[in-house]
Amino acid sequence: MTHINDNYLKLKAGYLFPEIGRRVGSFAEAHPQADIIKLGIGDVTEPMPAAIAAAIHQAVDEMTNRDTFRGYGPEQGYSFLRDAIASNDYQSRGVDISADEIFVSDGSKCDTGNILDIFGSDNIVAVTDPVYPVYVDTNVMAGHTGEADANGRYAGLVYLPVTAENNFTPALPNEKVDLIYLCYPNNPTGTVAARETLQQWVEYAKASNAIILYDAAYEAFITDPEIPHSIYEIAGARDVAIEFRSFSKNAGFTGTRCAFTVVPKSLQGKSATGEEMNVHSLWNRRHCTKFNGVSYIVQRGAEAAYSEAGKAEIDALVKFYLTNARLLREGLEAVGITVYGGVNAPYVWLKTPGGMNSWEFFDHLLSSAHLVGTPGSGFGASGEGYFRLSAFNSRSNVEEAVTRFQKVVS
Amino acid sequence: MTHINDNYLKLKAGYLFPEIGRRVGSFAEAHPQADIIKLGIGDVTEPMPAAIAAAIHQAVDEMTNRDTFRGYGPEQGYSFLRDAIASNDYQSRGVDISADEIFVSDGSKCDTGNILDIFGSDNIVAVTDPVYPVYVDTNVMAGHTGEADANGRYAGLVYLPVTAENNFTPALPNEKVDLIYLCYPNNPTGTVAARETLQQWVEYAKASNAIILYDAAYEAFITDPEIPHSIYEIAGARDVAIEFRSFSKNAGFTGTRCAFTVVPKSLQGKSATGEEMNVHSLWNRRHCTKFNGVSYIVQRGAEAAYSEAGKAEIDALVKFYLTNARLLREGLEAVGITVYGGVNAPYVWLKTPGGMNSWEFFDHLLSSAHLVGTPGSGFGASGEGYFRLSAFNSRSNVEEAVTRFQKVVS
Repeated sequence: MTHINDNYLKLKAGYLFPEIGRRVGSFAEAHPQADIIKLGIGDVTEPMPAAIAAAIHQAVDEMTNRDTFRGYGPEQGYSFLRDAIASNDYQSRGVDISADEIFVSDGSKCDTGNILDIFGSDNIVAVTDPVYPVYVDTNVMAGHTGEADANGRYAGLVYLPVTAENNFTPALPNEKVDLIYLCYPNNPTGTVAARETLQQWVEYAKASNAIILYDAAYEAFITDPEIPHSIYEIAGARDVAIEFRSFSKNAGFTGTRCAFTVVPKSLQGKSATGEEMNVHSLWNRRHCTKFNGVSYIVQRGAEAAYSEAGKAEIDALVKFYLTNARLLREGLEAVGITVYGGVNAPYVWLKTPGGMNSWEFFDHLLSSAHLVGTPGSGFGASGEGYFRLSAFNSRSNVEEAVTRFQKVVS
Repeated sequence: MTHINDNYLKLKAGYLFPEIGRRVGSFAEAHPQADIIKLGIGDVTEPMPAAIAAAIHQAVDEMTNRDTFRGYGPEQGYSFLRDAIASNDYQSRGVDISADEIFVSDGSKCDTGNILDIFGSDNIVAVTDPVYPVYVDTNVMAGHTGEADANGRYAGLVYLPVTAENNFTPALPNEKVDLIYLCYPNNPTGTVAARETLQQWVEYAKASNAIILYDAAYEAFITDPEIPHSIYEIAGARDVAIEFRSFSKNAGFTGTRCAFTVVPKSLQGKSATGEEMNVHSLWNRRHCTKFNGVSYIVQRGAEAAYSEAGKAEIDALVKFYLTNARLLREGLEAVGITVYGGVNAPYVWLKTPGGMNSWEFFDHLLSSAHLVGTPGSGFGASGEGYFRLSAFNSRSNVEEAVTRFQKVVS
């Protein structure tokens, strides 16, 4: 009989969010009158910017005309979009990234998983703890780990704790690692990396010949002018880092699907015979063989995110969610909760009160306040005793959530 | 230094179509006046059906309204689309496939590559020869092969020749294989599998505990009522086959991107300890972890392909391309060329005249007639001496191509 990939059997029962979905579903079934407010998954709620919708409408009209119809596009994305990205997200900040180093894709989640295709299976992989679960699960699936222990930590992975004790700044690994996942602004903690922190990582990667997988899906939420938006703002990062970016959280594309990955041409890996190999070429080969490009009409929508009107609308969206984050933060602090994040990120990370563990607090908040958040321990062992609230919601839901939260906690 | 995936180094210089692109590009540069007609890549040319465009427009409008805005959708696709697929493509033909066995994706190319994620690396893989190159290249990337020989055949893969000598019907493998790629209507040969042929494969897979990866991306072009559109029309196929389907070639979605993969819940694989494992669950885990669903607006467009208006427009599109195929077929036969396919498929597969090999004929056709096709040998060693022409083009281009072809050949 055909063999399955046995690595899948190492995966813990469920991806975090399906488990939350199950618990919320069974509570809702038992309490059909409960008005549940979900601040769990980081999913946008506000309408698509008009400039983007207009661009998609126009692109659909082009598709209905034989002369302007588009079939297969370049797998890497259309020039109109790659140029707009290079110019607006990089060159305008003085960062040396060119359009042909940008690969447009249908999602950062996909790319952070797929990127493993081009690397060897003997690399040592480091992740922060807590961490976005997809980094870990895709490494498990790819056979880069052993079994999980009771805390959900997989043998073979190097975990770098980020907690209040180290101010959410991971220490450099003690052992040699080859691939390092960093995510800033951080999901789930909502914290950011100072320029010096990123500099330290770039220097570390250079010195130890490692590659940084830098997830900057939330960069639009950075308000502090001192915080880098891209790892390529750090000198030398072109030689050690791949960056993942997305239109999901700024332009509201979680349901529309467009993202991009930057693989600088100067990035090198090593073959089994010790030869230096160009990582950009490998990813290009992977992308052309296993992907067929993002929908043309969606790429036109993403392009419009860089128009003057699109930028203004996105700016307003980001400010709206950041105000939600501030209301959550201040509302929780007012009743004595210790809160992190929520300033340069749409996530608020809080210490669970009363010594409850993360899932206990989840159940408590669901049953007493009909509020859904995400248990910190779902993101890793070091997330135990923490809890994430997402600022992606309507203002009225956020305000109502704060009121209920305060009532339950105080 | 971080190790790369050394299997990539086994890949031949380029995916077939980039190599064609290079040759056409350099000819066009040297002959800027040449009016080149491309019948190479199988890319649609006709406008998007009005019913589909209308559905996408409406979905975009929904996205601009907070109450109807959609963020993350189900990774497997929205029910409205999965239900339409199950009912129209399967249940209406008396085939027992349910909506929750359907996984909506952004392309069959992606899925035929990604499916390998869930299988073990020790499976023996069989492909026809010639074959759609993605099946082979993704197996090479996944480390399922050794090096390629001078003919481009990779050690470790089982090649099943399909040529005029066996009437393009692959013989059952002599050795034990675990995964078998079949594609009908066939790309590149344009030939089809009779019910008895598919029955034989299903029985073989049952008897030898193998899984068939069945690519039916071109099923809409089947005109013969005796030819099955889905492998699930064969009794027992639910237990041995995964089917790949696409909106690319019927609804013209090559640039819009939507496809689906059917994984029946009755399909089983085996773990290393010999336990039977449900393949549907594995693919669901993979899909949820490494994919985030197809754009909502695109799924609404795909749904409209099943509306009465959409069906009528798609029917007209398919007939249009099939008429192109007939013109190519008849035009070539009129000057003594031996032609296969082009009846139940949008591809015409011809014997190169005058004993030329496939690339010689490619260069000859490009330089003498400014016509681009695809060399049969690019699809595999047994494709040598054959050549593929695609019927995806305007009527006037097809007619002009036939005229030029006849002039050059006679």
